[in-house]
Amino acid sequence: MLNFNYYNPARIVFGAGTIQEVGGLASAYGKKVLFHYGGGSIKKNGVYDQVIRSLQESNLDVVELPGVVPNPRLSLVREGIEVCKREKIDFILAVGGGSAIDSAKAIAFGARLRDDEDIWDDYYLRGNGDIKAAIPVGVVLTIPAAGSESSTGSVITDWDKNLKRAVNSETIIPRFAIMDPETNYSLPAYQTGCGVSDILAHLFERYFTNEQHNDLSDRFLESAMRNIIAYGPLALKHPDVYRYRAEIMWTGTVAHNNLLDQGRVGDWASHDIEHEISGIYDLAHGAGLSIVFPAWMKYVYKKHIDRFVQFATRVWDVDLTFDDKDLMVEVAIDKLENFYRSIGMPIRLSDAKIGDEKIRVMAQSALLGKTGLGSFETFTADDVEKILRLAL
Amino acid sequence: MLNFNYYNPARIVFGAGTIQEVGGLASAYGKKVLFHYGGGSIKKNGVYDQVIRSLQESNLDVVELPGVVPNPRLSLVREGIEVCKREKIDFILAVGGGSAIDSAKAIAFGARLRDDEDIWDDYYLRGNGDIKAAIPVGVVLTIPAAGSESSTGSVITDWDKNLKRAVNSETIIPRFAIMDPETNYSLPAYQTGCGVSDILAHLFERYFTNEQHNDLSDRFLESAMRNIIAYGPLALKHPDVYRYRAEIMWTGTVAHNNLLDQGRVGDWASHDIEHEISGIYDLAHGAGLSIVFPAWMKYVYKKHIDRFVQFATRVWDVDLTFDDKDLMVEVAIDKLENFYRSIGMPIRLSDAKIGDEKIRVMAQSALLGKTGLGSFETFTADDVEKILRLAL
Repeated sequence: MLNFNYYNPARIVFGAGTIQEVGGLASAYGKKVLFHYGGGSIKKNGVYDQVIRSLQESNLDVVELPGVVPNPRLSLVREGIEVCKREKIDFILAVGGGSAIDSAKAIAFGARLRDDEDIWDDYYLRGNGDIKAAIPVGVVLTIPAAGSESSTGSVITDWDKNLKRAVNSETIIPRFAIMDPETNYSLPAYQTGCGVSDILAHLFERYFTNEQHNDLSDRFLESAMRNIIAYGPLALKHPDVYRYRAEIMWTGTVAHNNLLDQGRVGDWASHDIEHEISGIYDLAHGAGLSIVFPAWMKYVYKKHIDRFVQFATRVWDVDLTFDDKDLMVEVAIDKLENFYRSIGMPIRLSDAKIGDEKIRVMAQSALLGKTGLGSFETFTADDVEKILRLAL
Repeated sequence: MLNFNYYNPARIVFGAGTIQEVGGLASAYGKKVLFHYGGGSIKKNGVYDQVIRSLQESNLDVVELPGVVPNPRLSLVREGIEVCKREKIDFILAVGGGSAIDSAKAIAFGARLRDDEDIWDDYYLRGNGDIKAAIPVGVVLTIPAAGSESSTGSVITDWDKNLKRAVNSETIIPRFAIMDPETNYSLPAYQTGCGVSDILAHLFERYFTNEQHNDLSDRFLESAMRNIIAYGPLALKHPDVYRYRAEIMWTGTVAHNNLLDQGRVGDWASHDIEHEISGIYDLAHGAGLSIVFPAWMKYVYKKHIDRFVQFATRVWDVDLTFDDKDLMVEVAIDKLENFYRSIGMPIRLSDAKIGDEKIRVMAQSALLGKTGLGSFETFTADDVEKILRLAL
């Protein structure tokens, strides 16, 4: 177990009917709020009206910045930064899923940079810049998936250059996240499936580590995997059962609030590889992850057989004889693929109508500015290409 | 799953060699530090010297208040409050286990009360007073057990009246907790066992709830139980193996930082019953809990058979036929008792040389000022007496 420093001050306000608390929570941070969201869905499902009403009841000035899209764009972030400076925004409220939140986080610290700094070149491209200040961010979460509601991370795409990159900092952890599982009832099945896949991926990235002797985290990660594997298909079958949505939503937060990776180093190679797919093809992140992970597992498991046997037994209840460990892992990966299919996710590039034309481009782009990809193993562009070919 | 509001801003600094960070962390809160601790153990194991050196290197003024004892006393709390007012203390550093931390928390908010308020009468006795302000508290944890290092709680005993009572408030959550598992190597076996018992009890209190449909918390609680059941005996067998101590220490924090009881109501009857035992006999809290829990389980399980069957199967791997659920639970409780014995804990009052003389007194005292005890079931004094008799 490695030494660690864990800090997560995000307040989670969870449950049916909690959106009405947003005005009261936001008013602790000032008078002028940037209300940042996507498009029509929060207007259709009533969340927009609930948020506006609560902000107005708390006498807050609201500036709206809609237009966030999946794989949120650097261009809108730059626009938001200008709005914050011009309007002297005190607080940014992101309403939606990970895209709205990640975009809000980028705007929040972007608006506090020095004039000689560029948010993209100096922070996202160069990796973890040391973010010193940010406008406080709050969240009304309507899509459980990214875990951004209480995480240190923000992922943004420069669509002009097909580059998707991340930053991490305690400074941009949201001050609060309101999570009402009832808002998830109206999510399309595909989006529910993508969210479940994303949550599971966050657990995988933390589980596959070379750091030994951190059994509590292993057990928690396995528990969270079992939970999402149990309730994901149930939420698809019965979209408006509160408890299924609640299990997914809460698991999604805990999967990514960094509690479960203390004392270890996560891998994140699969996320980086997936970012190339969704950065080029604009595929949903969760759908890209369900394509990458089975291929990644097939590529790496032999060198890490003990960890994969633990995964097979504790997560997938594979109880074959330990004499044939490869078979145990094969069965576990089969079960994972069946799970992905059961929640409507693709498991091959061909399922998403993606061929091999850009595999080399993606593999090279994934390594751009890096000497290697991942921590569990360290990949070259050739490794990434082989993994993508396994996913064809 | 109930609605919930979760907030825990304690920074956990975990690992070998981390005590040297205390001065830097404390200096964020002012110049004058009350260094609050127990007796000789931190002087013998070198922790005292490490703390003083780090505080001095950060140029902090240190006022020492030693003398905390297990089941920390109201009298020392009152003394600490006077010291804080007289010396204009900015920050309180508790070094030790739950007793030092609970005492520090009491001093911290006691020093900020209005002159017409009394810390004992208005807060501890009357139950959850709304604590509005407190001097910031930091922790160097040397005994994993109470979980107070990142919890909202503080338990204090009025030794003149044999009353042990608790308060809870976000206001007294420590700002940071430094946790170096190496400091646990020198713990006596009995104290290690008591800590393991206390941690397990914190998991039990949260697990036995009437709130259904909170499966993630169930799974996490079961995982943490399995972890402490696995590593407790190993730490006793090999006291200076880092990883065993680290597993216990980190599990102890997560068991009590309130993450695992979101969306549910814990029971805490067994804690209240145990407080009567240790309030009268000055038994270690963990040793009292290992006496109370088996008796409590025998007394309540029939009405909550599903929960206890889940406990038997998921925690204790009881795989008997579901046709005889009572037998499954009986086997699980037997396993729990064997576990307690394996870590050197008493499982009957007679093991602790306690007879039946004061059972009625304890039962009545536990109900003092309350209409009922516990949430899983609501006990009268008669119920408490019956449970204590089952523990004879």
